Amino acid sequence: MSQQRQLHLNLLFNNAGNFSSAWRWPDSDPAAFYDVAYHVATARLLEKGTFDAIFYSDVLALNDTPECRPFQSLEPTILLASIAAATTHLGLIGTISSSYNDPFNIARRLASLDHVSRGRAGINIVTTADAAAARNFGQADVFDHADRYARGVEFIEVLQKLWDSWEDDAVIGDKPAGRLIDPARLHRVDHKGRYFDVQGPLTVPRAPQGRPVVVQAGASPDGRAVAARHAEIVFTSAHSIAEAAEYATDVRRRAQAFGRKPGDIAILPGLVTVLGSTEAQAKQRAQALWELVPIKYGLNRLATVLDVDARELDLDKPLPANLPRPRNGSYTVFDKAVKLARDGNLTVRELIKAQGGGATMHRVIVGTPEQVADSIAEWFATGHVDGFNIVPDAIASGLEPLIDEVVPLLRRKGIFREHYEGKTLREHYGLPRPASSYATH
Amino acid sequence: MSQQRQLHLNLLFNNAGNFSSAWRWPDSDPAAFYDVAYHVATARLLEKGTFDAIFYSDVLALNDTPECRPFQSLEPTILLASIAAATTHLGLIGTISSSYNDPFNIARRLASLDHVSRGRAGINIVTTADAAAARNFGQADVFDHADRYARGVEFIEVLQKLWDSWEDDAVIGDKPAGRLIDPARLHRVDHKGRYFDVQGPLTVPRAPQGRPVVVQAGASPDGRAVAARHAEIVFTSAHSIAEAAEYATDVRRRAQAFGRKPGDIAILPGLVTVLGSTEAQAKQRAQALWELVPIKYGLNRLATVLDVDARELDLDKPLPANLPRPRNGSYTVFDKAVKLARDGNLTVRELIKAQGGGATMHRVIVGTPEQVADSIAEWFATGHVDGFNIVPDAIASGLEPLIDEVVPLLRRKGIFREHYEGKTLREHYGLPRPASSYATH
Repeated sequence: MSQQRQLHLNLLFNNAGNFSSAWRWPDSDPAAFYDVAYHVATARLLEKGTFDAIFYSDVLALNDTPECRPFQSLEPTILLASIAAATTHLGLIGTISSSYNDPFNIARRLASLDHVSRGRAGINIVTTADAAAARNFGQADVFDHADRYARGVEFIEVLQKLWDSWEDDAVIGDKPAGRLIDPARLHRVDHKGRYFDVQGPLTVPRAPQGRPVVVQAGASPDGRAVAARHAEIVFTSAHSIAEAAEYATDVRRRAQAFGRKPGDIAILPGLVTVLGSTEAQAKQRAQALWELVPIKYGLNRLATVLDVDARELDLDKPLPANLPRPRNGSYTVFDKAVKLARDGNLTVRELIKAQGGGATMHRVIVGTPEQVADSIAEWFATGHVDGFNIVPDAIASGLEPLIDEVVPLLRRKGIFREHYEGKTLREHYGLPRPASSYATH
Repeated sequence: MSQQRQLHLNLLFNNAGNFSSAWRWPDSDPAAFYDVAYHVATARLLEKGTFDAIFYSDVLALNDTPECRPFQSLEPTILLASIAAATTHLGLIGTISSSYNDPFNIARRLASLDHVSRGRAGINIVTTADAAAARNFGQADVFDHADRYARGVEFIEVLQKLWDSWEDDAVIGDKPAGRLIDPARLHRVDHKGRYFDVQGPLTVPRAPQGRPVVVQAGASPDGRAVAARHAEIVFTSAHSIAEAAEYATDVRRRAQAFGRKPGDIAILPGLVTVLGSTEAQAKQRAQALWELVPIKYGLNRLATVLDVDARELDLDKPLPANLPRPRNGSYTVFDKAVKLARDGNLTVRELIKAQGGGATMHRVIVGTPEQVADSIAEWFATGHVDGFNIVPDAIASGLEPLIDEVVPLLRRKGIFREHYEGKTLREHYGLPRPASSYATH
């Protein structure tokens, strides 16, 4: 029996959900964002739906308009270590900034998370474009764009060296001889680079997955270069199949230049879902969520993305002409917003609405479970995407029908697992377990 | 009914146990040190014994002789977040280096741990004296002793400011008004110091305990000064009641100078236990554990502490005369070892043995459950100690009789709780929940 190519689904956990109004939904608890019980309940729901992973984004400063919506408050690896204890199969992906961390600490923390979860850890490495974050770490402003990415690449390389610094069989546990570890199978990494000098070895035996899975987002040329070189799962954004095709073709071509095969990278665009039993009900739900969006939030968020003063934006007019790219912000998010506005000839208010109230820049489907499942299947069949990072409109009310109705439809199409076949995040994704680069036998 | 003053007990988790041979004990699993199931099982045993807390030490580099004994491998806060999910009352204390971390990251991680554990987090702040650790963080050597401590003090102060930066009632969750958070109850900390510039506020709502509990070790004048100013639980070492009395009197006097009351600090010396049904059996067990100690480990560990080459130490002779204090190592550990050797006129081999094979520098009791309980009660009755950080000889075989036999004896004496009365680590210790220093009402 030939097995159909299988889809991969992560939940991109944007706390209350994609809509900045999700916390105001009748069954939402406004304080859920910092309540571990809410996170654990969500993870268990995902495990019921055999999702590949839960995926936490992150921020290192209070941004935008904190009074208007929840944000990633609890530190992702702490949250994931607690979720690990309450689940058995779900992959656990946390976001870490390469700008405001030491690679030794992060290599250790992720290897530890991989051990406590028995091989379910993934790390989404981001460069930080937020000046308020810089000011929480003793710096007046963020690193320049190119510098951020160069540091990010070196950061990943140091992680990989440290994760490789214990060979698989280094812990021998020979009680009679009194030899716990074979020191010949531990390796100093002696990394001396532009940003980091790290001696090693790590203090943690080799992780169950060899290396935790490396996830990467970013659509700028710098971001694509990093993804092509190091990412195993790419988190991207695409509003049309043509856009997804361009991205996939480019990233896979770039990856080939690094000796990587097309199957070494799973590409997952973001996808916002608003579900209803009928299309009309879904549209009603979207409208109701939209009406609850604090417009102030969406406006300030957009002003941050565009690097302009919020007072320069008129809710009922198009974007100002000739917006320059922000000197140091995220080009990806900026370009998406401007393109969406120009292509659709949208007012500022319509642009905020098209983005679900300003939380993400991802494609939104408003429809029935059948419509969502059909769209997922259609995109997947093109071969340009390997799955989706799903962002429900509101959690739990928008996640439950996804698990209970959309997932069964995807299974019926034969493109999504009925039950977990592997135990680790690598196994869920069919990614090979890398050998230690120091292994001699 | 007047309540007797109550004892506090932490487990100082030295992985396999205090003896460097503990992993070779018949029922020990050599790979347990990086197996979360072992850590969770130990935590549950402690919860059965109504211990105040599990306390993880830490290291940031492979030291001494890694082939000979387990060490703190998994990152403590990750481990504690997993243990939090598997326990309900046990306090969770992790060790963090102020030398190789940013206070913003640590404030956030500890506040997150306090949230996921519902108020059970404590943080033991240490300064790092290990040059190998420095080389994992881009530095050739550690900071000077005085500089390390000055940085440590400023580090704690930044943590406290960040933990205070959200007032208790900042999350208002007003759905009708669309106001999740009251921004007037969030505060920038705008810390500008010698070592750190941090803007704030933190990204985490105020922790259940207000601030996670601050633990501190260190017997040098610098260490005592930090403890007196900021510590709520002090981890110390004392080989006699007279030594404990000197320490307590000095630290409490110093604390008074900072406006603190004697009851604001709990003082807990380390205590190594080797238990047997009879004294003879306990002695046999100690002897058997000692015979399994890889002498190479003890020798290298001692050489590191003394900052000499291991070849300068002769196992069957006393320590060399005129040993200078290490330029940058831990004075506390150095002084203890030299004093122990000189006072007892010990050979190097005897010194290693007196220290349980080199793992810690703490007092060792070899005896029956009655002898251990009586000694604990005797010290406690002097008022100079508030409890002990217990380091069993080997875990689990040396911890089980502590829980099943020593704890009931302490309860019978009326000095240890029958069941948990509080839910948070602060409540276990009777420590007040601090108000935010920014609170205006």
